[in-house]
Amino acid sequence: MLRFLTAGESHGQALIGQIESFPAGLKISIDKINRQLTRRQGGFGRGGRMKIEHDRARILSGLRQGITLGSPIAIIIENRDWSNWKKLMDPIRPVSSRLNARQKRLANDTTRPRPGHADLSGAVKYDTRDLRNVLERASARETAARVACGAIAGQLLEYFDIRMVSHVLSIGRARMKRKKIAFDEIVSKADRSEVRCVDPAVSAEMKAEIKAARKNGDTLGGVFEVRISNLPIGLGSMAQWFTRLDGALAAAMMSIQSVKGVEIGDGFASAAKKGSAVHDALYYKPSGSVRSRGFYRRTNRAGGIEGGMTNGSELIIRAACKPIATLMKPLETVDVINKSAARAITERSDVCVVPAAAVVGEAMMAMVMASAFTDKFGNDSLADIEAAFEAYLKREF
Amino acid sequence: MLRFLTAGESHGQALIGQIESFPAGLKISIDKINRQLTRRQGGFGRGGRMKIEHDRARILSGLRQGITLGSPIAIIIENRDWSNWKKLMDPIRPVSSRLNARQKRLANDTTRPRPGHADLSGAVKYDTRDLRNVLERASARETAARVACGAIAGQLLEYFDIRMVSHVLSIGRARMKRKKIAFDEIVSKADRSEVRCVDPAVSAEMKAEIKAARKNGDTLGGVFEVRISNLPIGLGSMAQWFTRLDGALAAAMMSIQSVKGVEIGDGFASAAKKGSAVHDALYYKPSGSVRSRGFYRRTNRAGGIEGGMTNGSELIIRAACKPIATLMKPLETVDVINKSAARAITERSDVCVVPAAAVVGEAMMAMVMASAFTDKFGNDSLADIEAAFEAYLKREF
Amino acid sequence: MLRFLTAGESHGQALIGQIESFPAGLKISIDKINRQLTRRQGGFGRGGRMKIEHDRARILSGLRQGITLGSPIAIIIENRDWSNWKKLMDPIRPVSSRLNARQKRLANDTTRPRPGHADLSGAVKYDTRDLRNVLERASARETAARVACGAIAGQLLEYFDIRMVSHVLSIGRARMKRKKIAFDEIVSKADRSEVRCVDPAVSAEMKAEIKAARKNGDTLGGVFEVRISNLPIGLGSMAQWFTRLDGALAAAMMSIQSVKGVEIGDGFASAAKKGSAVHDALYYKPSGSVRSRGFYRRTNRAGGIEGGMTNGSELIIRAACKPIATLMKPLETVDVINKSAARAITERSDVCVVPAAAVVGEAMMAMVMASAFTDKFGNDSLADIEAAFEAYLKREF
Amino acid sequence: MLRFLTAGESHGQALIGQIESFPAGLKISIDKINRQLTRRQGGFGRGGRMKIEHDRARILSGLRQGITLGSPIAIIIENRDWSNWKKLMDPIRPVSSRLNARQKRLANDTTRPRPGHADLSGAVKYDTRDLRNVLERASARETAARVACGAIAGQLLEYFDIRMVSHVLSIGRARMKRKKIAFDEIVSKADRSEVRCVDPAVSAEMKAEIKAARKNGDTLGGVFEVRISNLPIGLGSMAQWFTRLDGALAAAMMSIQSVKGVEIGDGFASAAKKGSAVHDALYYKPSGSVRSRGFYRRTNRAGGIEGGMTNGSELIIRAACKPIATLMKPLETVDVINKSAARAITERSDVCVVPAAAVVGEAMMAMVMASAFTDKFGNDSLADIEAAFEAYLKREF
Repeated sequence: MLRFLTAGESHGQALIGQIESFPAGLKISIDKINRQLTRRQGGFGRGGRMKIEHDRARILSGLRQGITLGSPIAIIIENRDWSNWKKLMDPIRPVSSRLNARQKRLANDTTRPRPGHADLSGAVKYDTRDLRNVLERASARETAARVACGAIAGQLLEYFDIRMVSHVLSIGRARMKRKKIAFDEIVSKADRSEVRCVDPAVSAEMKAEIKAARKNGDTLGGVFEVRISNLPIGLGSMAQWFTRLDGALAAAMMSIQSVKGVEIGDGFASAAKKGSAVHDALYYKPSGSVRSRGFYRRTNRAGGIEGGMTNGSELIIRAACKPIATLMKPLETVDVINKSAARAITERSDVCVVPAAAVVGEAMMAMVMASAFTDKFGNDSLADIEAAFEAYLKREF
Repeated sequence: MLRFLTAGESHGQALIGQIESFPAGLKISIDKINRQLTRRQGGFGRGGRMKIEHDRARILSGLRQGITLGSPIAIIIENRDWSNWKKLMDPIRPVSSRLNARQKRLANDTTRPRPGHADLSGAVKYDTRDLRNVLERASARETAARVACGAIAGQLLEYFDIRMVSHVLSIGRARMKRKKIAFDEIVSKADRSEVRCVDPAVSAEMKAEIKAARKNGDTLGGVFEVRISNLPIGLGSMAQWFTRLDGALAAAMMSIQSVKGVEIGDGFASAAKKGSAVHDALYYKPSGSVRSRGFYRRTNRAGGIEGGMTNGSELIIRAACKPIATLMKPLETVDVINKSAARAITERSDVCVVPAAAVVGEAMMAMVMASAFTDKFGNDSLADIEAAFEAYLKREF
Repeated sequence: MLRFLTAGESHGQALIGQIESFPAGLKISIDKINRQLTRRQGGFGRGGRMKIEHDRARILSGLRQGITLGSPIAIIIENRDWSNWKKLMDPIRPVSSRLNARQKRLANDTTRPRPGHADLSGAVKYDTRDLRNVLERASARETAARVACGAIAGQLLEYFDIRMVSHVLSIGRARMKRKKIAFDEIVSKADRSEVRCVDPAVSAEMKAEIKAARKNGDTLGGVFEVRISNLPIGLGSMAQWFTRLDGALAAAMMSIQSVKGVEIGDGFASAAKKGSAVHDALYYKPSGSVRSRGFYRRTNRAGGIEGGMTNGSELIIRAACKPIATLMKPLETVDVINKSAARAITERSDVCVVPAAAVVGEAMMAMVMASAFTDKFGNDSLADIEAAFEAYLKREF
Repeated sequence: MLRFLTAGESHGQALIGQIESFPAGLKISIDKINRQLTRRQGGFGRGGRMKIEHDRARILSGLRQGITLGSPIAIIIENRDWSNWKKLMDPIRPVSSRLNARQKRLANDTTRPRPGHADLSGAVKYDTRDLRNVLERASARETAARVACGAIAGQLLEYFDIRMVSHVLSIGRARMKRKKIAFDEIVSKADRSEVRCVDPAVSAEMKAEIKAARKNGDTLGGVFEVRISNLPIGLGSMAQWFTRLDGALAAAMMSIQSVKGVEIGDGFASAAKKGSAVHDALYYKPSGSVRSRGFYRRTNRAGGIEGGMTNGSELIIRAACKPIATLMKPLETVDVINKSAARAITERSDVCVVPAAAVVGEAMMAMVMASAFTDKFGNDSLADIEAAFEAYLKREF
């Protein structure tokens, strides 16, 4: 099964992403991967670290001459600031005694867990009182490796004309009120906005919210949406609870570091409506290309999933991000060593990461959908997948 | 790893649930399992079938003399109406030619897919034009097997004083406005309400909504909440995207047949707030029992999960159910044989299943948490789990 | 992924087999399943229980009117002797006080672990001193459920003209000396022999060995071979250590209750030869049907697997079974309660099960190969698998 | 679950190994890892490449200051000859036109599949006619990453006083005749022999065999054995076919590139003996340390596994390696482009790798056993594992 995993600490030498069972024969653009990494680093509201890093992916295996081999794809994203962190984070050597002032502060500043973060739970679980041992892996920096993997999965979907977009629906109290937003509008407008919102007026409100939060040493969350178009009917399965695609999508989204809620199609809103106003009536178009003819719907409240399977409509999924947990005006906490009341550590300084989280959301969707797609149509060679996919589309229904 | 799966069609001979890697040595009450099955069948808004069934679990394996053996636990729930369905659903023999009128209608009434259901996607995927071949497995009847498995997992958690409750927050437009609802209030009040809502006034509104919907041949959804108390810190892990417990919880909830949205803690609401108003400050209580002393929070907006791990607070998860997809005033659809416009089939007649879905939600949470618990503390014998659990609680922090 | 699991204790109510992700649209013969169950129960050297049982499979789910649905297939094999065991093995009720003499003996006779069996290790692991709690699941009786599942998988392979046979190469010291045995010879002769050996003279020797062992209260093992013909090239993968098909085959065979060794092709013998005498030179046949033309070998020392993948030659795998562990002249052991020296319990009375183990070996191979086949060609509907398979065979090479 | 995977092509930039769910808190020696890598590269019979490489592991993640963090451990082994291969193997850029003579030969020399290797099956499966696209991943060079991972797993086992050794039993026709070889003898003698055989006379025979094979442009295989001592009772489980430890061990060994046979304990030999001569009688020692008292056996024909679980005796597993598939006097084959008869490509020049394969065997056993161990005793922190392990050993039996 096509799947991926990552390794690496936030300030370690490098992040690693690895994709298993990716089909052979696909031409991969490294530029497209790097473009996604750049998108992940952007967005109004990011802190200073984003300027240092300029993440670049380097393929270590699984490709040759730009073409996938069918073997595991390993990607490395080196930490451009590693020389400054080596003394604190060396995998083998003890922390150096020759630290500069900043390093000394960082070395000692790891006993006051941040509310909202993995710090305390991880420290208890993994039996450590140096919270850096936990926060380095728990950090959302890890999503850079997800994005690199997702960018490869996305190129597979793209080959089959499956397109993906994302945009930001709200940041703090600033939100899109308009309900109908076309796929193409998102394509053309989201990346032009510093907050990845299609409406310039709402974008401006969002930026104002962020500025105000920054001023107060506070942080903001928001809601983003990912959409995928041109999917075939029947990815995922209703056969078993864990084969349902909506479950896999929800897990993928909820696993993103600040996400606290996920909904598909009309989601929570559908819970307040009547069945007759929620379900999408079916129609049939007898002619057209294999991908445009056949059954269709005029509405898409289901968000493209029925019975745990794609239904041919656009897949629409939204995720709610809580505000990030590191505050410049830190919250009350307790020192894990001496158990006295304290103020939480202040590891980094983004104010709002929702625009970036949306890019991570795309990556996660790309991985889940590439997995579902190759589950159904094979994952050995591109030629074989194409043959299976075409035969499926042509199978008379 | 402790996990479960189910088998069985809605009108087949039986549903089967199977649990793998359940620890040996736990005394299981069959009555408690049956009580959960009864709770799943209840709720104002259910149709006639609930009266026929009175599901009863029968243990086929994995227990002896009431005690788990460590071997796979198989549970069977026989279909009490099987004699009436045998001619249509026999696993081996072709559909009998000697059908009565109702059976004839059912046999022929399977070509007009219901919007909102698995019917069409499943038919395309599995290459059938007899929608019964799909809808029988896709039906939420399958959740009876989930509930039986969950009732066993729940008894493991209960042994370790981990408690679980659920209640209904909204049905259609009728909703709880009060935010603060204590765990014990749910324990004492939810099951007394026919809609499993703790507030009698809101319960009455909910019932009124259901009555109105039924009158109009329409259906309703709603929102339910599951809570789990007394969990240790550190279940789940931030180590990898797919080891995060929030992802597993989201997948489990989203896999329930009508669920379209899931949120943990303040969920979507937290996206509109500032970080300083969302994260839960930490405090420390130096004395008390091993399970009451130590770190604690005065608020619980995180819903018990930080960094993909339990943090010791109550776990709070909500799910939004869309209205059920079978309408007595059916929606427009297309016949899969002749492709002409039609009205969808009307397989069964519940108006609202949210109270039952909440019971299913408990079962899914029980399975996920029993799995996370035994992942951490072992799953061979109860004695060994106890030893590991106690050692963990006592490990000084 | 197509996979299966089982549940059930040896003297419990029933054994359950469950297959996941089996494709829709295949016509299944229940008679063929039962024929495999009968083959598993046969063989010279079996004890009395085989006469009681006459296992019959009953499909509980996943089929309708003889055709697979794509949903989980659950099979039940009821224990025909359950009424005699209910008092000892009731899943819920304590052991009845009203036992007859034989039942009393069985109830008390469970503290002296048999060398060679799971008894002691299982008792320590699962924290029980009633060895029946372990031996009931560890018993090879469980393989009846494997055989039922394998018989379904075998019908899928058969649909694609993939054939499977098994035969016995040795029992005790009696062994086939002839090396070259054609597939068709096994088809025509193995099942005619009471010991499933193709050579009547060796069959006679094997039976003599068994008779002698029975007389001495002893038991015998032996070696069996499973072969599969007409496999496509490229099942399994060299991409990762755990995707190699030879590893999966070895695990499947080694998991059979008495198996202590597995080899593919020339196996251990190839370790003593030179490379030039081991590897199979390649040739090419430009014409013929898609399944007969192309690359071929004149020898098959590799046993059909190179680089962890099928190579188009016959797959040949052998397994060594140790003698069964229950001796009528029991070995020395130690009572788990009072720790005094004792003689091991004598639960059942087969002398030699190698002919039956070969049937189990077929079932395991069928499951592994059906899984590898559907991994490559899809597992949703038979029509789609056929299309993908044909396209693969026709892809010019 | 503790598990590992690898990435990387034989002549790519680097090999990557990644271990998931490794417990936090273990001090890791990088020297011990490198020592295993050196052992893997040694052995009489290796070709020239071994001299170039001198593999060194570099930890990329999962450790800090020499201590494991609980997060994924990524290890990189860079290809020291990468500068010479870059033009042929660049992951992104097409093959350079400026190749030197050797590179030109290598670039063109990839269409004549080697019998015995993955070349042909992989080329068909992954739809390529450049066999380098297959052989680079299929190559046993990949085992360097396995060994690095295994060396980490081995340090976990070592912490719990579980020891592992390997030695070579035969190469070609030269073989150890003596049956009884003590664990400590292997410890002290195997690594002193260039062929890792404990008997100097047999070592000399083995070397003579290798020299003769080299002279003839031929290759040799052999049999190696891995042993593990001081294991607790009850790792693995008889509960399900795929939870049996013997199956997992067999898969791990059979997945090593040249292995064609695996046996545990007396293995194939036990098939020819009587039950009374195969099973290991049980005895009891009432006093001693928690790890030496209790049940024991005077024989160990079972090789430490009964019922799919460890039984407390030494675990003994043997694997048969076929001769390596690249011959300097190449076998007949067929060109995949023009389909004409040809001689197979001659990619590298080891004559015999059995001593190295034994080191790989240790690594695979270390991974499987570390996984089984942490499955039973937890895999979060070393402190918790110790507590669970001690409680288990002390649990009275």
